[in-house]
Amino acid sequence: MTASKQDNLIDWLRDAHAMEEQAEKMLSAQSARLAHYPQLRQRIEQHIRETQEQRQIIEGCLSRHGSSASTLKDMGGKLLALGQALGGAPMSDEVIKGAIAGYVFENIEIATYTTLIAAAAEIGDTETQQACERILEQEKAMAAWLLEELPATTRAFLERSADPDLTAKR
Amino acid sequence: MTASKQDNLIDWLRDAHAMEEQAEKMLSAQSARLAHYPQLRQRIEQHIRETQEQRQIIEGCLSRHGSSASTLKDMGGKLLALGQALGGAPMSDEVIKGAIAGYVFENIEIATYTTLIAAAAEIGDTETQQACERILEQEKAMAAWLLEELPATTRAFLERSADPDLTAKR
Repeated sequence: MTASKQDNLIDWLRDAHAMEEQAEKMLSAQSARLAHYPQLRQRIEQHIRETQEQRQIIEGCLSRHGSSASTLKDMGGKLLALGQALGGAPMSDEVIKGAIAGYVFENIEIATYTTLIAAAAEIGDTETQQACERILEQEKAMAAWLLEELPATTRAFLERSADPDLTAKR
Repeated sequence: MTASKQDNLIDWLRDAHAMEEQAEKMLSAQSARLAHYPQLRQRIEQHIRETQEQRQIIEGCLSRHGSSASTLKDMGGKLLALGQALGGAPMSDEVIKGAIAGYVFENIEIATYTTLIAAAAEIGDTETQQACERILEQEKAMAAWLLEELPATTRAFLERSADPDLTAKR
């Protein structure tokens, strides 16, 4: 079964659109639940605004190819089940699993945009390529921030978790 | 509900152990299916051997804390559903989704070991800390390789996908 390069590009842009929709839901659920980790919450709220803009940018790319966002495809659904599972799970170490999940989701996005940049370059769609390069930088910045903060978040969680007077989990 | 720092460390070591077991299953399934992307297959096979050693190292860390690997915990199960979903999914762009999934799984591992290093340091368990630091370098190397190769894999896939005489998907 053959598919043109443009067909594949459009499929992957639709994956990216579904991914950004899911990212917004997941980040919003995390932010609403975080109570004792203000820096993490603030950075997540900044990234929610970036995510909304990214979704609109991808809609523009699809539109230029005479296409539009579709309902969630099979594969998107599988990747995104991760986000749904982790969005607001009530675990004792919720803040840690949430930070890990956020970092992992950023890396789904990093890999997806890396694929899209190569595909857009391959068919000479400079506008999509440059849009995806700009988005990729934002995703990389968010991923790097989450990973850099993870040791401090871990230490804060361990202190709170060991103290009977404090709530640790979120 | 309080938990000691050691309790949390042991929980996370168990998560890591379940993760490495799942990583080996997922990588083996991918490697067995890859037919037309020999470099990717070769790097995956190298990482299967690293993954087996990592699992044994984590078993040693658990044993030093008087504990052992448990059956898959809830959270582990959720994170790892991703791996199961992606291990050998028969999609038209299977090689691309597989490369993305492999990269994402490496980043689950990177975040998990980053947490473990901070937790082991916090309770002064230098041996676990150093073991996890060594594993983290292997995971980062595999993640970086997969991301660097992704544009070339994408271009190879797009060429094969557009050619009626070639099989592209794996």
